[in-house]
Amino acid sequence: MTNKTLIFKKAPANALQIPVAGEHLVIEDRPWDATAPPPPGGITIEILWASYDLYLRAKMRDPEVESFVPAYPLNGPVTNDAVARVLKSDSPDYKAGDLIQGYFPLAEYATLDKDALTSFLSSGGGKIQNPHGLKDLGLFLGPLGMPGLSAWCGLYELGKPKAGETILISSASGAVGQVVGQVAKLEGLKVIGSVGGDDKLDFILNELKFDGGFNYKKEKPADALKRLAPKGIDIYFDNVGGEHIDAALESMNQWGRVVLCGMASQYKLEPEERYGVKNLLLALAKRISLRPFLVFDEGFGPAYTKDHQAKMQKWLADGSIQAKLAVTDGIDNAANGLIAAFQGKNFGKAVLKIKD
Amino acid sequence: MTNKTLIFKKAPANALQIPVAGEHLVIEDRPWDATAPPPPGGITIEILWASYDLYLRAKMRDPEVESFVPAYPLNGPVTNDAVARVLKSDSPDYKAGDLIQGYFPLAEYATLDKDALTSFLSSGGGKIQNPHGLKDLGLFLGPLGMPGLSAWCGLYELGKPKAGETILISSASGAVGQVVGQVAKLEGLKVIGSVGGDDKLDFILNELKFDGGFNYKKEKPADALKRLAPKGIDIYFDNVGGEHIDAALESMNQWGRVVLCGMASQYKLEPEERYGVKNLLLALAKRISLRPFLVFDEGFGPAYTKDHQAKMQKWLADGSIQAKLAVTDGIDNAANGLIAAFQGKNFGKAVLKIKD
Repeated sequence: MTNKTLIFKKAPANALQIPVAGEHLVIEDRPWDATAPPPPGGITIEILWASYDLYLRAKMRDPEVESFVPAYPLNGPVTNDAVARVLKSDSPDYKAGDLIQGYFPLAEYATLDKDALTSFLSSGGGKIQNPHGLKDLGLFLGPLGMPGLSAWCGLYELGKPKAGETILISSASGAVGQVVGQVAKLEGLKVIGSVGGDDKLDFILNELKFDGGFNYKKEKPADALKRLAPKGIDIYFDNVGGEHIDAALESMNQWGRVVLCGMASQYKLEPEERYGVKNLLLALAKRISLRPFLVFDEGFGPAYTKDHQAKMQKWLADGSIQAKLAVTDGIDNAANGLIAAFQGKNFGKAVLKIKD
Repeated sequence: MTNKTLIFKKAPANALQIPVAGEHLVIEDRPWDATAPPPPGGITIEILWASYDLYLRAKMRDPEVESFVPAYPLNGPVTNDAVARVLKSDSPDYKAGDLIQGYFPLAEYATLDKDALTSFLSSGGGKIQNPHGLKDLGLFLGPLGMPGLSAWCGLYELGKPKAGETILISSASGAVGQVVGQVAKLEGLKVIGSVGGDDKLDFILNELKFDGGFNYKKEKPADALKRLAPKGIDIYFDNVGGEHIDAALESMNQWGRVVLCGMASQYKLEPEERYGVKNLLLALAKRISLRPFLVFDEGFGPAYTKDHQAKMQKWLADGSIQAKLAVTDGIDNAANGLIAAFQGKNFGKAVLKIKD
């Protein structure tokens, strides 16, 4: 029996190159003994859903090159946040059938020995609690996973939303943005989204019911804000960087907050090609703070996990919040789905469904 | 008897024009009855020292033009933070000889009626406490006044200095910068200053004993930081904006703090002429916050006044902290001194000494 696995086969030539399926990322059959017992003190799992995230691209490199995340070992599996089901257990803490979430290979099966179980827990993994019986386990990688928690802790810890205020969100239909906007709506804010396509604009306006939106490829953010937020914005949840920051600073009211969550428009540029933000003077005059965070930072994700899970599960169950997932179906398509995500072709949170 | 007073006579043609003495700013003899009793419930004062601040320029405009501060009324006195002595009092709270600090006209004499005394107190004015018997009353407008309090609350509230860290300060010999640097030294930080002249560089290195410094007119900030802070900086106390922010973001260590206190290099530029900051991407990657403040903001000056006065008076008395004042002598020179400050010709905190 085999275990189809997404393998990091070869580093792309440079940081900008999109990996090629079959060359850099390859599906391989790895040997698998389905009859073997679980490792002593450990568990055997089948992976059900896995998350596709842009930061994985940074791990696909020569390990000699420094970066903010460790490189994937060559010829090893691509690993990421995933949902799995316990098949066999030699651990007193798990039993067959348990659903768990953690950092697993993008493969059909895996084992976690006793040490791996310990580091699995210490890195935020654990059993999935699903009190409302949510059927779509992909949700645990979207609004209930890292993107949802990022949205949640960034909005509450740095955005400090108050009913009646106005928030601008860039990449508003993305995995983080769609959560920020819907939570902000529930908190009583006026929500304006920036997106990069008319289908996405239609989605945030007509499905997510945002109060306003614009396609930044058709309208300059500064112009759109004059039209959509004539009284100014109070929070800018930034996923793209660049020109949007200038526009937000211009539109912003006194005491505004810029939450720096991502800078999709700037990552791939050489330093001298980056957009130059000219409106920091307005940040001083209007006392607008610009504050970055990563979901794993102390005081951010870890501090908000419980609140996030409890409220978000309820809101997903009762329909207060919707989630748009971009699902790649089957381990055979794992490389192509991930590459499409790197190319920004997904609409909604990109996930791989290996099995139900 | 007359009361020589600095009068705002005419608004300069535009925001960039430097006022002209005798045209926009004029010393006038205003009538003064030295024998009159104090106003009912009020006091009569003689003004001793007054502060020269750059933001006063913004008050010298047509009141129809919006700005962050109210315009001076035409033909009225120029007013600002000042130190005065009570000459006569009909208030139970003051007696002749009391030293007070508040917002007064740049003149020889003034009266404060009962209402004026109330607003004087509510805007932070009050009797000067001088337990260490500091002789130079100009200090109460420098390290013990608004610039010193700005330095203090910005450094502590946003800079969050920790012994062993490295701080960069721009306009390091200025009224705010010289205090930030000396307090940071006392807190055990490595202090690097940026200044705009070799005399100022000599001052911060040889008199204030900063650990490093550079003349930004001769060396690019990014190059200077590579040379002076090869292990990176942790705090950037910004008084100038522009290129210094990019250099600081490049040099900064993880969790760095940029304290936005002033942007002297950017104020007078048209929006499109402003420097474009390209390194906000690094703020995200290194989790560097950029946070502005004004000394009057809640949680800033008012929250730190007591601590600032107590420690700074002690440090000035025991020589731990030095102050460089740029003193204009006499009310007759009041216009020229203020204009020189607008032109950046002062070296140290600019003040007007009317009498001792």
